[in-house]
Amino acid sequence: MKKSSFLSLLAVTPLVVTSGILLAQGMGGGMMGGMRGMSGVQVPADNPITPAKVALGKQLYFDARLSKDGTVSCNSCHDLKAGGADNKPVSTGVGGAQGSRNSPTVWNAALHNAQFWDGRAPSLEEQAKGPLTNPVEMAMPSLDAVVARVKGIPGYGNQFDAVFGKNSLTIDNIARAIATYERTLVSGNSTFDNFRFTDKSALSQTQWQGFKTFREVGCVQCHMGPDFAGPPPLARGDGFYQKFPLFAEGTLVTKYKLQDDLGRFDTTQQVGDEHVWRVPSMRNVKETAPYFHNGMVPTLEEAVRVCAAGGNNRDLTQGEVKSITAFLGSLSGVLPEQKMPKLP
Amino acid sequence: MKKSSFLSLLAVTPLVVTSGILLAQGMGGGMMGGMRGMSGVQVPADNPITPAKVALGKQLYFDARLSKDGTVSCNSCHDLKAGGADNKPVSTGVGGAQGSRNSPTVWNAALHNAQFWDGRAPSLEEQAKGPLTNPVEMAMPSLDAVVARVKGIPGYGNQFDAVFGKNSLTIDNIARAIATYERTLVSGNSTFDNFRFTDKSALSQTQWQGFKTFREVGCVQCHMGPDFAGPPPLARGDGFYQKFPLFAEGTLVTKYKLQDDLGRFDTTQQVGDEHVWRVPSMRNVKETAPYFHNGMVPTLEEAVRVCAAGGNNRDLTQGEVKSITAFLGSLSGVLPEQKMPKLP
Repeated sequence: MKKSSFLSLLAVTPLVVTSGILLAQGMGGGMMGGMRGMSGVQVPADNPITPAKVALGKQLYFDARLSKDGTVSCNSCHDLKAGGADNKPVSTGVGGAQGSRNSPTVWNAALHNAQFWDGRAPSLEEQAKGPLTNPVEMAMPSLDAVVARVKGIPGYGNQFDAVFGKNSLTIDNIARAIATYERTLVSGNSTFDNFRFTDKSALSQTQWQGFKTFREVGCVQCHMGPDFAGPPPLARGDGFYQKFPLFAEGTLVTKYKLQDDLGRFDTTQQVGDEHVWRVPSMRNVKETAPYFHNGMVPTLEEAVRVCAAGGNNRDLTQGEVKSITAFLGSLSGVLPEQKMPKLP
Repeated sequence: MKKSSFLSLLAVTPLVVTSGILLAQGMGGGMMGGMRGMSGVQVPADNPITPAKVALGKQLYFDARLSKDGTVSCNSCHDLKAGGADNKPVSTGVGGAQGSRNSPTVWNAALHNAQFWDGRAPSLEEQAKGPLTNPVEMAMPSLDAVVARVKGIPGYGNQFDAVFGKNSLTIDNIARAIATYERTLVSGNSTFDNFRFTDKSALSQTQWQGFKTFREVGCVQCHMGPDFAGPPPLARGDGFYQKFPLFAEGTLVTKYKLQDDLGRFDTTQQVGDEHVWRVPSMRNVKETAPYFHNGMVPTLEEAVRVCAAGGNNRDLTQGEVKSITAFLGSLSGVLPEQKMPKLP
């Protein structure tokens, strides 16, 4: 068994190690240094990262007053203490409303070039505006109402002035601040990264076996690249999409109703987009049960079984499921603790 | 049946239409405008396109004196009158020698970011040097010998002086000239492009059915993007790789010995690279029989069958094979006639 090398399918970009994510590359637009092994974070030219903007964005991210009845914040569904999601099949919005799709983790969302399960937002900034007015999420009547709400909270105005200039409390700048905070929510230094770059004995035998099986049965056909979410680096908005399920006849696909949601088609209305999804990253996947777009698959082991069946027409053995699951566990990185911000 | 839209999986870059490829964007480094629907040609900053360089590269491309015994030119195996390849399972080099891999077409090779079946060359420039000294191809004893050979041909020296400056007849500049000519060998305006951008009735019913089937059975899992060769735009050298066959047990895979070649592993010696290949474009695929890395699959219909079996564990019906093949035929573009250059 040879552990001395790694997979070109993962097509890792040149190694960038930064001791602190905010120290990277002048914080201007462009590519922000990621942690080792991961693809870099794209920073838009019109939204450079500054510490004050990160702090403002963090406040907004945790501020439930941005929702209709003051009960739901970004963090309610993308809970940084719960793997960046909420561990529910679908999230609960204002008034107990429920949507139809599982909350994707915010950790490492900055590495994606297309946001939402269907990739319909080309940036974190665009994504941030979505839940605010979604009636089953934060349920604000309009984006203007969001701006009015934030303006009505003493203290935010001065911060926007300081970060963006005078009269800058707009919906675009609210989104820019939140997106900027999210660009700091990057989680690397997983056991797998350690294995890959430092310590060839970091993976257990089972994890190593799982890594091999992950490649051999074709999981990497979709989950390739440094983030196991497709080949890097794609341009902004160019998400890596795949159809799932490709094999819709199986009992697992039926059991978990994975054919019911048309995915990207609902957004684009384009023939061929039926059941097409942005490929999710496998980093930290162990932390974000339940699984799939509808959150109906309760465990990671079962998710592995479902993915192999619906994606590759494979009926995995129990041993294969165990080892792939163990390998996926090695992709959990260090999630830097986020202290609740003091809100204005 | 709805033809009014097309597939986001194809993830087409913004439309660029140029009336003449050499007129595009100042011919400097950067992105050269492609034909409509296709990904753009990447032009290295240190090798801008000029008409004189294209002419020089064309001469070198057609000049068999660059081979050991003066019998084999680039065009011998990448024959511009034979779909940019040679329609043989494997090519014949100097002295009747044969390699083990099918000649890939040079048409649209400029759209790939990794060259050769296994992607081992990150640029056309690097690729151009390979066959010169390959003992089963042009068989020159060394790259220095190539330079000496070209220097010995009266006329080339002056052209290199004019194109690259004094004392510039080096192997790198030979490669730059050839690569520059190859960047003009772009073939768009296929029936499919016409369908996609101009005339919704351009595809026949069978082709349209084949396009749908191509997506539904998962061919697009690998053959996505504007060139049906993976998602754009990848950075230089970041080829889009996939393992093939993923399903090695089938009779077709065995019949055509598609497991015998370890692919990218032979170059990288990396665990996990066994049977990994750069995904070839489907543009002009109808013109480049026989198929697969070993050239053992004689017809496009059979290639479709083999690919679905080995890649997706699908046993296609005869109707599905027919329609996909018809669709693939719609990807043949206009191949601008190349007149033989006058050699010095």
